[in-house]
Amino acid sequence: MAQLRDLKDELDIVIPTIRNLDFLEMWRPFFQPYHLIIVQDGDPSNTIGVPEGFDYELYNRNDVNRILGPKASCISFKDSACRCFGFLVSKKKYIFTIDDDCFVAKEPSGKEINALEQHIRNLLTPSTPLFFNTLYDPFANGSDFVRGYPFSLREGLPTAISHGLWLNIPDYDAPTQLVKPRERNTRYVNAVMTIPKGTLFPMCGMNLAFDRELIGPAMYFGLMGDGQPIGRYDDMWAGWCAKVICDHLLLGVKTGLPYIWHSKASNPFVNLKKEYKGIYWQEDIIPFFQSIALREECTSVQDCYIELANKVKERLGLIDPYFEKLGDAMVTWIEAWNELNPPPPAQTATLAHPNVAMKN
Amino acid sequence: MAQLRDLKDELDIVIPTIRNLDFLEMWRPFFQPYHLIIVQDGDPSNTIGVPEGFDYELYNRNDVNRILGPKASCISFKDSACRCFGFLVSKKKYIFTIDDDCFVAKEPSGKEINALEQHIRNLLTPSTPLFFNTLYDPFANGSDFVRGYPFSLREGLPTAISHGLWLNIPDYDAPTQLVKPRERNTRYVNAVMTIPKGTLFPMCGMNLAFDRELIGPAMYFGLMGDGQPIGRYDDMWAGWCAKVICDHLLLGVKTGLPYIWHSKASNPFVNLKKEYKGIYWQEDIIPFFQSIALREECTSVQDCYIELANKVKERLGLIDPYFEKLGDAMVTWIEAWNELNPPPPAQTATLAHPNVAMKN
Repeated sequence: MAQLRDLKDELDIVIPTIRNLDFLEMWRPFFQPYHLIIVQDGDPSNTIGVPEGFDYELYNRNDVNRILGPKASCISFKDSACRCFGFLVSKKKYIFTIDDDCFVAKEPSGKEINALEQHIRNLLTPSTPLFFNTLYDPFANGSDFVRGYPFSLREGLPTAISHGLWLNIPDYDAPTQLVKPRERNTRYVNAVMTIPKGTLFPMCGMNLAFDRELIGPAMYFGLMGDGQPIGRYDDMWAGWCAKVICDHLLLGVKTGLPYIWHSKASNPFVNLKKEYKGIYWQEDIIPFFQSIALREECTSVQDCYIELANKVKERLGLIDPYFEKLGDAMVTWIEAWNELNPPPPAQTATLAHPNVAMKN
Repeated sequence: MAQLRDLKDELDIVIPTIRNLDFLEMWRPFFQPYHLIIVQDGDPSNTIGVPEGFDYELYNRNDVNRILGPKASCISFKDSACRCFGFLVSKKKYIFTIDDDCFVAKEPSGKEINALEQHIRNLLTPSTPLFFNTLYDPFANGSDFVRGYPFSLREGLPTAISHGLWLNIPDYDAPTQLVKPRERNTRYVNAVMTIPKGTLFPMCGMNLAFDRELIGPAMYFGLMGDGQPIGRYDDMWAGWCAKVICDHLLLGVKTGLPYIWHSKASNPFVNLKKEYKGIYWQEDIIPFFQSIALREECTSVQDCYIELANKVKERLGLIDPYFEKLGDAMVTWIEAWNELNPPPPAQTATLAHPNVAMKN
């Protein structure tokens, strides 16, 4: 297997949380060389404990409001959707985001899985969304393209997203949690695959990495939680939008390895309350995303995303006024993105980092 | 895991061969309850030895000619493409076809894999081609649909094809064989997945099962081998045609488990000679299949296949006259299929089996 860069200076780890980050202890051997961006959800007066020795910046709601001003309205409150604020303020090329109830998983051999290393491998090797390879990732060690795979497609496409999976507690919706309270995921599937072009997937934000330069502006987690009619569709929303845009811009999305160990099922009754509108809305949302064709003139993620926002307002607005608000928030998000991430001026110095609460 | 039927009286095992079938000894515990259809390729005066105790019928080229008359021209000679003759004469609902250099593989635990049982499981449980499930087959034991999977799609679609994989010698084309002569597939991926609608895949005929009633007439392996300009694209051809038709008729195609142990790499120099036209033709053939839209009026596999044959002649005929011949052979194949597999007359006795060489 070719040696890949470790991206130590090119990747931020984004963690949304409401509690002390003791879970980082278990990740110390893997995460300590990286910079963390912690997005504190809920009451800003709470103190979030971070284990010694980690390099981090932490933002609470007051910071979000101060940095974004009126545009802060696009960042959800009391919902893990707030994590996308971390994507916005990062200055790195790559993001890895993980939930604070996720721990280091083990391979069947007992070896601890370095999830971040596998995500980096996924992001730094090409994707193959234009044709299916039956032996999975052709860029994995000991693997290749099978007979019948067109040679013209073997260079692959740049990888924008790496979607990792979960052992132990699977990512089920509330109805499935209620019906199968004891189901645990024990199946370790030793594969990474590209999700084909034209196919949507349910993107989970629990264990996710992406190339911020390639797809960052599409990684908006929507309006969820406090004051909104739904929750637990933040990552799904980002996944649908991002996949449609990746397909349009010929970028790849991978899923499979790495696994993390998801320790605790959330409360299915609370989840049902958050999800129930999403569960019936998605029956219309998914055909909407499946039928979208972005104009050829949309050549940047921002162009695509604004076009998508307009379509959301126009077509999903018919389902519920919520989607008009969401469409507006999508536009606000892009404005905020462009403000904090201006295109690098040719031959001049790097722009100053926004005035934020730096700790450690 | 729900107990599934063993399909003992509903499935034929089709084996194309030019040699004694000693490989069946290893499969005895798994195959002996089933009926075998052996298609003898090459010189009909050779005798193919079949181990004692198997229930089989064997067809050589003389039988093919006698049964099909002038339509025998659509059955390839000196190429494993001749296997599709077995699909034609079977009277069963399901087919499993396997090459005679494939042996019983083992799980990482050391347990022998009952490939046929897994294919049956794949065929008897639904497919999910309309949306991607990140935890793989939602009908597998201990698995389900993940959060964000639309509930309206959870019934799935009927499964038409189950494509199994290979440990040890991977199914590589001649150039890859030449470049990586020592590469072996040692990666056991414990998953079955549905290939999404709209996505083509390289279907290998080495370890393959399908529902003859749902997709049989599309499982034509084309004109290959003796007197033809290409070989080793027989299963690919069937796979492209069958996938396009499955997508049109809303049928599912699965790939992944079960593995067989592929014992011997074929000669890459011989393979290169057979493949080289296919390698450049497929650069046009695949966009052709990717762009095909079958008319809504095509509601049977036969309708779809005839329409496809016409498009092949019209559009691929521009690449090489071979494709006009192939298009004609596709039509002949359907004529032969309809002759040997007439629709069951309502309320009358089952039609007599064609007069064939029955042994054992």
